[in-house]
Amino acid sequence: MSKEDLHIVKIGGNITGSPDKLADFLARFHKLEGKKIIVHGGGRQATALSEKLGIKAKMHEGRRITDDEAIDVAVQVYAGLVNKKIVAQLQSLGTNAVGLTGADMNLIKCSIRPKDPIDFGWVGDIEADSVNVEQLDKLLNTGAVPVFCAITHDGNGNLLNTNADTIASALSAGMAQKYSGVELTYCFEMPGVMRDIKDPNSLIREIDPTLYDQLKKDEVVKDGMIPKLDNAFDAIESGVSKVHIQEASTLGTESGTTLIK
Amino acid sequence: MSKEDLHIVKIGGNITGSPDKLADFLARFHKLEGKKIIVHGGGRQATALSEKLGIKAKMHEGRRITDDEAIDVAVQVYAGLVNKKIVAQLQSLGTNAVGLTGADMNLIKCSIRPKDPIDFGWVGDIEADSVNVEQLDKLLNTGAVPVFCAITHDGNGNLLNTNADTIASALSAGMAQKYSGVELTYCFEMPGVMRDIKDPNSLIREIDPTLYDQLKKDEVVKDGMIPKLDNAFDAIESGVSKVHIQEASTLGTESGTTLIK
Repeated sequence: MSKEDLHIVKIGGNITGSPDKLADFLARFHKLEGKKIIVHGGGRQATALSEKLGIKAKMHEGRRITDDEAIDVAVQVYAGLVNKKIVAQLQSLGTNAVGLTGADMNLIKCSIRPKDPIDFGWVGDIEADSVNVEQLDKLLNTGAVPVFCAITHDGNGNLLNTNADTIASALSAGMAQKYSGVELTYCFEMPGVMRDIKDPNSLIREIDPTLYDQLKKDEVVKDGMIPKLDNAFDAIESGVSKVHIQEASTLGTESGTTLIK
Repeated sequence: MSKEDLHIVKIGGNITGSPDKLADFLARFHKLEGKKIIVHGGGRQATALSEKLGIKAKMHEGRRITDDEAIDVAVQVYAGLVNKKIVAQLQSLGTNAVGLTGADMNLIKCSIRPKDPIDFGWVGDIEADSVNVEQLDKLLNTGAVPVFCAITHDGNGNLLNTNADTIASALSAGMAQKYSGVELTYCFEMPGVMRDIKDPNSLIREIDPTLYDQLKKDEVVKDGMIPKLDNAFDAIESGVSKVHIQEASTLGTESGTTLIK
């Protein structure tokens, strides 16, 4: 196992959709030393393109269904526009970025989500062996800085929409087989996990699994935060050293919430 | 210099726009042995998306101007939809494809075309040192098969629309510094260069610079074929071993027209 560190940073649509926030984030990311990876979403921009094209989002109980039209839009926006703009901007800073989907070099192979009981369409679920650790390591060793969008493939020629938080967690867990110091940072709209969203002084600096259980019981952690933190604790269980949840504008500083074993 | 061979194959919108032709081409490409690269366009699909979005192409004397809207469409279609579908299909065949723009790993850095006398917008012109030969060689040595779309960058954070034929020729010329046997194939709508487009028996099997001059004088070669063949002869001058012009459906066979020194 390499003693090198690897830092994986996930950003969401609130960053990729704002040129100013994105430029600030990329400048901070550029300054991170050592091997590093970005994972990004882009749902807001995909929704904007769908609206321009007059494509209505198909939903089932609040969850999006990725039909033929929707996967094409997702691939255009995530793998095309959002991904390549990030790459070009990082290159202008001197970071040797390469934009990727999971299909590229077969880096992340997923399974199509089972169609029973609900057919969510072209959605990929990550499995234990989805990440191609050897190939990604070879790529990192060429000096490239991978920028992953939230698109994977099934190995049968189909591109799949895949949750970016899960991709970040799976990449971290996979690469922890090779790197002793894998750090995962989820960039977030808020300063971190808060006891009271309205009170900036209520930031929780550190969460271990026991506190996490309590926070869930007390409903301090709820809704969309639960899958995000579940992913994060899965990563720690798989050997990831640290998981941070912090605002993108504080990347590179000791801010936000850190999850520990 | 490596004694290895490298085969660079360029396909146009007539192939990428037809699922059947593309599948046949990719199956043939998959069977080519050794190191290899695809370069593709996608202009027809970009025009289709522009029309759906109600964006009218801006033209100057029959030549397209790539304004802000047009470069976004090009990046979405070329680098997103067309590129990643090719990658996913090649992966399903067992070819370890990776989809790229020139921004990725700074592989092809262009200059924005001078705005005087006509501002063509976000269009990149390839120069002698545009191809990052060392980085591309490192990538090939990981076992990856690069799939380039017709997007490059300027190194200042801007993505640029760049002619795919020129990219193919520049990649070939650049890699001829590293590989002794670089072969460049332009896949074409017709069986090759014909004396009479209507007569399938009029295929010219071999063209050297002297014959090329004659064919231009006789207007057998004209219009869009001239920049294509100029590119091809430039590549040969730069050390590329062979250039073929043939139908995509004959890739892997001794068909079409071969250009020689």
